[in-house]
Amino acid sequence: MKFFDLVQDQIPQVEARMREQANGHHPDLEMAIEHLLNAGGKRLRPTVSILVGKMVDSHQERTITLAAAVELLHTATLVHDDVIDGSLLRRGNPTLNARWSPGATILTGDFIFARAAKLAAETESVPLMKLFAQTLSTIVNGEITQLFVSKGLISREDYFQRIYAKTASLFELSCIAPVYLADEDHHKMELMRKFGYEVGMAFQIVDDVLDFTSEQTALGKPVANDLRSGLVTLPALYYLEKCPDCPNMIKVVEDRIVSEEMVLKVVNAIRESGAIQSALDEAKEFVGRGLDALQQFPQSEERDALAELARFVVDRQI
Amino acid sequence: MKFFDLVQDQIPQVEARMREQANGHHPDLEMAIEHLLNAGGKRLRPTVSILVGKMVDSHQERTITLAAAVELLHTATLVHDDVIDGSLLRRGNPTLNARWSPGATILTGDFIFARAAKLAAETESVPLMKLFAQTLSTIVNGEITQLFVSKGLISREDYFQRIYAKTASLFELSCIAPVYLADEDHHKMELMRKFGYEVGMAFQIVDDVLDFTSEQTALGKPVANDLRSGLVTLPALYYLEKCPDCPNMIKVVEDRIVSEEMVLKVVNAIRESGAIQSALDEAKEFVGRGLDALQQFPQSEERDALAELARFVVDRQI
Repeated sequence: MKFFDLVQDQIPQVEARMREQANGHHPDLEMAIEHLLNAGGKRLRPTVSILVGKMVDSHQERTITLAAAVELLHTATLVHDDVIDGSLLRRGNPTLNARWSPGATILTGDFIFARAAKLAAETESVPLMKLFAQTLSTIVNGEITQLFVSKGLISREDYFQRIYAKTASLFELSCIAPVYLADEDHHKMELMRKFGYEVGMAFQIVDDVLDFTSEQTALGKPVANDLRSGLVTLPALYYLEKCPDCPNMIKVVEDRIVSEEMVLKVVNAIRESGAIQSALDEAKEFVGRGLDALQQFPQSEERDALAELARFVVDRQI
Repeated sequence: MKFFDLVQDQIPQVEARMREQANGHHPDLEMAIEHLLNAGGKRLRPTVSILVGKMVDSHQERTITLAAAVELLHTATLVHDDVIDGSLLRRGNPTLNARWSPGATILTGDFIFARAAKLAAETESVPLMKLFAQTLSTIVNGEITQLFVSKGLISREDYFQRIYAKTASLFELSCIAPVYLADEDHHKMELMRKFGYEVGMAFQIVDDVLDFTSEQTALGKPVANDLRSGLVTLPALYYLEKCPDCPNMIKVVEDRIVSEEMVLKVVNAIRESGAIQSALDEAKEFVGRGLDALQQFPQSEERDALAELARFVVDRQI
């Protein structure tokens, strides 16, 4: 895909920057970071940062540093998520906590946070560092909210807040931050914020759709994982609109001690209700608004690549 | 004590800055931060930063912000330590994880890290932020090393590395950082680094001594906690020098499945060997070197207060 081609020289530099963060520290930290880097991941966020950086002509070296900081921040949050959820697999690979004690895993996450913060400081931009720290607060506050209150039936507003915290906030950061490393033009920043926000929201909606449409082997996790854990996502919200009383679904998300048969029944009802398509259409609307913002930049190879990436975000379920 | 008197106007400001970090976030985060702030702690690190700030005439508002950042960083590491160790009490108060799930406790620690990083960024000093992130890496790397390798018999060098990471690194930061918020004079920075290093090392040595000399009720934790968990500290190292074969002690720290009787036997042997006094003498030597560095600043009320604080660090066992 074109958007990966355009960054093929930079992504290995970003990965090298990530890898060297363990240098001079405990050998098990090196192993852990190596393991996490080899565990896959499309490096979508660094790709976005580098493309935006090229588009706005940001300081190249610092953009690599920033991209590594963003990806490490993302990695650290995943490491802590997996230990909190007790997940043993991510993208089909064993998680860190599948091999290590919870204590070692928590500390590895902390170390990666520390290195992400150090890289953010090395961009030499104070506003970027503030935004970086603010984004981490947003992500963690979202997770805490999810832990304490967002199980069971929620409003669309709560859902959008949750996916903003979970995914779109970091996409936003990946898009705005390179502008800080160029000219700090406020109009460009606002456009890039919008592009990052809209594409990030779409990304999470599609992830939530995939949880309903994928079979266990494809995602490396059981289908309808969200539903099973009481998490209501956009397809379920559309289904509830169409069928507000649907007692089975309310039972699944509120009680959460239900039979496999009941879960499959609800998943099938959602699949057959048109809710999946409605959620995908909404994701496309988000991407459309993101593309509108993007089109306000002069045409360039990078702009086209970012547009391709935005469309990929909704098309990847195919 | 004089050193607390001199900062009595600033410490409430530091605490207010810490408290407001939960504003606008999940109410349980507010409760958690309130709980942590009410759980005591002498605010030694903020006191040090404010006294140094006054001595070198640093930007006052930013020094308050820095002091809050340092104390939050310290707090976040304690929150994660307690969840990793499964500790239910700290300073006689219930820990966060005594009341909450491990997941909620891990995320609260992450949130506090994020807010500490945000406050560090609000000092507007890039070198300070770099040092801040570096210090967090050092602390976490030390904990990981302790988790993986430092149990059982270790060298003095390993011990000093461990207590540097655990305690002295953050004391160093508390002392150097205000100089960044004044004139960034490298000579002053080096002197302050030395003062913070030496006093921080002494602080941890005395903590390690107190673990041997205190009874269960005073510290709010069982006596000889370190020894029981296989952690060799300076009094044990002195005892080993005096009595290199001491089979009981080697058994306690290496095997760690030993009777209460055996632990008490070893603790008594260490207490009676003069090792406690040797460790305290060494702590006093550290403080002496710290005071030598401090004396190179012109006399002032704040300098005298810092000297008093340094002496308090070794005298507090009385």
